[in-house]
Amino acid sequence: MKAQPLPSLEPLPLQQVVIEDAFWTPRVETNRMVTLPTEYEQCRVTGRIDAWRLDWTPGAPNPPHHFWDSDVAKWIEAAGYSLATHPDPALEARVDAVIERIAAAQQPDGYLNIHFTVVEPENRWRNLRDMHELYCAGHLMEAAVAYYQGTGKRVLLDVLCRYADYITSVFGPGPGQKRGYPGHEEIELALVKLYRVTGERRYLDLAAFFIDARGTQPHYYDLEARERGEDPAAWRLGRYDYNQSHLPVREQTTAEGHAVRAMYLYSGMADVAAETGDETLVAACRRLWENVTTRRMYITGGIGSTATGERFTYDYDLPNDLAYAETCAAIGLVFWAHRMVQLEADARYADVMERALYNGVLSGISLDGKRFFYANPLEVDPVAMERRSDLFRSTVVTPTRQEWFGCACCPPNIARLLASLGAYAYAVDASARTAYVHLYLGGRASLSLGGTPVTLEQATRYPWEGEVQLTVDTEGAVPFTLALRIPAWCRQATLAVNGQPLEVASLLQRGYARIERVWRRGDVVTLQLPMPVERIEAHPAVHENAGRVALQRGPVVYCLEEADNGPHLRDVVVPRSAPLEATYVPDLLGGVVVLRGQGWRRDAARWGSALYRPVGAPTRAMTVTAIPYYAWANRAPGEMLVWLREA
Amino acid sequence: MKAQPLPSLEPLPLQQVVIEDAFWTPRVETNRMVTLPTEYEQCRVTGRIDAWRLDWTPGAPNPPHHFWDSDVAKWIEAAGYSLATHPDPALEARVDAVIERIAAAQQPDGYLNIHFTVVEPENRWRNLRDMHELYCAGHLMEAAVAYYQGTGKRVLLDVLCRYADYITSVFGPGPGQKRGYPGHEEIELALVKLYRVTGERRYLDLAAFFIDARGTQPHYYDLEARERGEDPAAWRLGRYDYNQSHLPVREQTTAEGHAVRAMYLYSGMADVAAETGDETLVAACRRLWENVTTRRMYITGGIGSTATGERFTYDYDLPNDLAYAETCAAIGLVFWAHRMVQLEADARYADVMERALYNGVLSGISLDGKRFFYANPLEVDPVAMERRSDLFRSTVVTPTRQEWFGCACCPPNIARLLASLGAYAYAVDASARTAYVHLYLGGRASLSLGGTPVTLEQATRYPWEGEVQLTVDTEGAVPFTLALRIPAWCRQATLAVNGQPLEVASLLQRGYARIERVWRRGDVVTLQLPMPVERIEAHPAVHENAGRVALQRGPVVYCLEEADNGPHLRDVVVPRSAPLEATYVPDLLGGVVVLRGQGWRRDAARWGSALYRPVGAPTRAMTVTAIPYYAWANRAPGEMLVWLREA
Repeated sequence: MKAQPLPSLEPLPLQQVVIEDAFWTPRVETNRMVTLPTEYEQCRVTGRIDAWRLDWTPGAPNPPHHFWDSDVAKWIEAAGYSLATHPDPALEARVDAVIERIAAAQQPDGYLNIHFTVVEPENRWRNLRDMHELYCAGHLMEAAVAYYQGTGKRVLLDVLCRYADYITSVFGPGPGQKRGYPGHEEIELALVKLYRVTGERRYLDLAAFFIDARGTQPHYYDLEARERGEDPAAWRLGRYDYNQSHLPVREQTTAEGHAVRAMYLYSGMADVAAETGDETLVAACRRLWENVTTRRMYITGGIGSTATGERFTYDYDLPNDLAYAETCAAIGLVFWAHRMVQLEADARYADVMERALYNGVLSGISLDGKRFFYANPLEVDPVAMERRSDLFRSTVVTPTRQEWFGCACCPPNIARLLASLGAYAYAVDASARTAYVHLYLGGRASLSLGGTPVTLEQATRYPWEGEVQLTVDTEGAVPFTLALRIPAWCRQATLAVNGQPLEVASLLQRGYARIERVWRRGDVVTLQLPMPVERIEAHPAVHENAGRVALQRGPVVYCLEEADNGPHLRDVVVPRSAPLEATYVPDLLGGVVVLRGQGWRRDAARWGSALYRPVGAPTRAMTVTAIPYYAWANRAPGEMLVWLREA
Repeated sequence: MKAQPLPSLEPLPLQQVVIEDAFWTPRVETNRMVTLPTEYEQCRVTGRIDAWRLDWTPGAPNPPHHFWDSDVAKWIEAAGYSLATHPDPALEARVDAVIERIAAAQQPDGYLNIHFTVVEPENRWRNLRDMHELYCAGHLMEAAVAYYQGTGKRVLLDVLCRYADYITSVFGPGPGQKRGYPGHEEIELALVKLYRVTGERRYLDLAAFFIDARGTQPHYYDLEARERGEDPAAWRLGRYDYNQSHLPVREQTTAEGHAVRAMYLYSGMADVAAETGDETLVAACRRLWENVTTRRMYITGGIGSTATGERFTYDYDLPNDLAYAETCAAIGLVFWAHRMVQLEADARYADVMERALYNGVLSGISLDGKRFFYANPLEVDPVAMERRSDLFRSTVVTPTRQEWFGCACCPPNIARLLASLGAYAYAVDASARTAYVHLYLGGRASLSLGGTPVTLEQATRYPWEGEVQLTVDTEGAVPFTLALRIPAWCRQATLAVNGQPLEVASLLQRGYARIERVWRRGDVVTLQLPMPVERIEAHPAVHENAGRVALQRGPVVYCLEEADNGPHLRDVVVPRSAPLEATYVPDLLGGVVVLRGQGWRRDAARWGSALYRPVGAPTRAMTVTAIPYYAWANRAPGEMLVWLREA
């Protein structure tokens, strides 16, 4: 039974969105001018580019790692997005040269993977559980689609179609086909992209097969391990929930295991559901969403709270200093949230997308675009980190961003998200003649509503100011609905069209204020999203945050840094009664709104040497200064803290 | 240069101290009647007793572990102490039977170690770094001395003297002797005990040699590893500070590495210093003491804050839920503190001894004497523990006491401390005609001061009530000084002799109120140590405890348990202004003073499903009930918390 695709919003092609925004334009430009060249250089010096020559031979140093392909693929994907809106012949030439090597590396049967061609060709497809062949294939498919859409060039797309055709022959329910599925999900959503751009149904079918086969019995990874002569129970990682194969996906109700894998799987489930009309997959996504966002997500949108397995742990386990919250996982949450909001037109998904974007994603990259966090803790004491690292040789979580990583998934991941930001801001529901604004950022979107071109011009100082002005430009009178997200953090939104106030509450459906009218050129919608500083508390079951608040203003979560507040940040108190003043400081950290208020702390200098003493230690007043969380660690290394003592 | 022994207080032989105390007598009796038989049984069923037959053969199951000897030794030592004050023919017969086997296991050259006799005889003395031959020897020496002192029987003492003589021939600075020293310290303090009971100077010299050789270059463990054909740098544990051999002991200024090893080393250093007059060792002990007690000790007297290496970490790193705080380490701190107070007659050592004893030591054993904690965290969430254990297979820290452990050091360690408690309570400085009272507990001490027998009768309801009455019984008029510890936790002590008040401040020297007078039979000293409930705060650098207080009354540290207060204990607030009422509850947990006060918490039931929300969640008032920390986990498993939110 092939059901119909689900009704779904459509994001705009990147070419139809122009970003001209005080907050985002510098970031998109830095991404293009600094991050993309930096990442290429890192790929080059680490051997990831040359590895495509397939000239590594056994015994030589630096054997190509089994996920190197994906790093280069994500870089190409990012370049493809960037080229869609910012032509750049030098970049394009560089990508073309890499693509030429990739194309040349494709095997006669269509297979395309560096590691399993030169390092262990005898093991092709023999260990889906641990290896990343299908994952790398998925990233190459995403790159191919993005580069094709950005430049119109088909070389890589054709290569990947050949590879996909070969994979389709190897995996599936047919006779002689492997029943396996990837240990690291990714190819599912990539196959749907390939299906959408090519119209080849077999790619969608394979995505659905991978999703349906996952976690069924007899367990493929058991069979596969035995075929390798291994005891499945002796697996280093121990539990199949690590890669979400502990149960068939429709029976999964809690987000388990490696967080990035989970996000890519759930995104693929949403994609397959959208195309096949499979409501059971949507229902599973909804249950998993509920679990992630009400039990297992940091206030920054970070997910996967432990470094051990880079994984989800259990409900309400959200340690701050030991937080892992991998940049890639927050990016994956953006991907999944974006798919869910397209499916359900419900702003709760876009709210989380925004939360992750402005906080747990952006924190992954330095302001200069050159350095990256893999882990994004909510509390950092560099002294403790250094000593722990010295004692326990654990250096996963660092107090400063790094130039690159052996496992370098995060840097190109953030690059591809920033390069494609426009795709997340708007959407169209063509059947309902509705234009959605998910994200507020300055620029222009060119839509087509009922066959009529419409331009939405957006002007805003978001996220620092809550006023958004949308100007409609079109020919004649066009009836359509403009659906504006009213963020959940905003409780006093007001709205006017051409100066005439509208009652937001009566327009609100699933978090979107829906203005249905006949629009004409020059119509101006003014949305006011007041941004008082909010003190946020966490559920009482989040034991670590009891007695503590996070500061949030608009979508931006704040933190204290030692640079502004001195050490022992855990001791700083911001009384609930203290006013918190928000001030835009243009020359700080690229321009940020800082929050300042009167607080106090114990006076460590007057404490004395005792470790314990009866209460009543001398305290001293202080001005507490908070900066946006995403901007931390761009000054001298020091303590950082999101959840502040309240008293 | 052989200097004179340092002037030092002398503890009383166990036979001279009678404990008749509402708090301690039941514990000492449970130790004798329940714990000692239980531990014997555990040693028996696990093969530790039979192993002395030396009939294990390669290939047979259950090979004797290289520290089994020490478990049995500590049990014998505990029995020896118990027999000194409580004759028990059945127990004595049982010990004699074990000793007979041990004596029969001694090799012709005097060597005595099960593992290295039957499992790997070729490796005798080849890996001091990792193996426990000298450690086991030390425990056997302590057992021999205790059993000899408790029963007058010399069999084991003679066996251990022969073993010590052999060890003395193997190790030392002479030609052909090994320059090594134990990876797990213990034999140093044991050799001093053996020296004290035999007068054989060579035992003291060997103890001093082990201490002096430690951490010198070239490093013995480097040489030894190379001799085994191993790369010293490939050591699993990596850092020589793990066993305190990173520096010569006199250059060590911070407490590093495995906490139990550190305590046994520092105790040995104090012992050697006392006997040899080596002030440089005392100075090192003082520096290390300062570091431990002002930077690296839990309020419970627990030390060694991480399970990884059971070790000290770094200054102010005192996590509550991840605390290791091994029972043996707190016991080791009691040993070291006791030696320091004898050396320096300064109550700050006895204060810490008391802190550890009533809190971090006693928490190691269940009220029924049958179950034991290895780790003693200050915060427990059994749900989190279970899930962590499930996810990470880490089961080191448990929310309930266990019957036994594969590494069973803690159970017999606590038994030997409880059986010898009397030795810690009193001391005499014969040269200064001074009797010291370190610990307050009911009973009698028989002293000799200036050749005159004096009995001190102590009556008190300590630690629940702060009144202590000491009655002197002697012949005629005896001039001596009675030095009573004024605990640092007490700020309003009062003192009277025969009803005549004395000014405490003017009598105070290094924490002891020194009453110098001519005493007569029936003189009564009344010491009042008022015990208000104290809220204690931790140094601002202990980040985890910011905004939190511990409740302490007298020497007893309190905690909340879920059984009294429901779950989410981290959320419970006890405002500083709330009175805390102390009530003795005879039928609770063997009779304890509980603390009760009015507090509040957020109302989880009315919170809703959101993970984060603006402040202002509904709260509800509650009666907060705190019980002594040592008594936790004697009811239904649940959360436990020492450091409470204050507001």
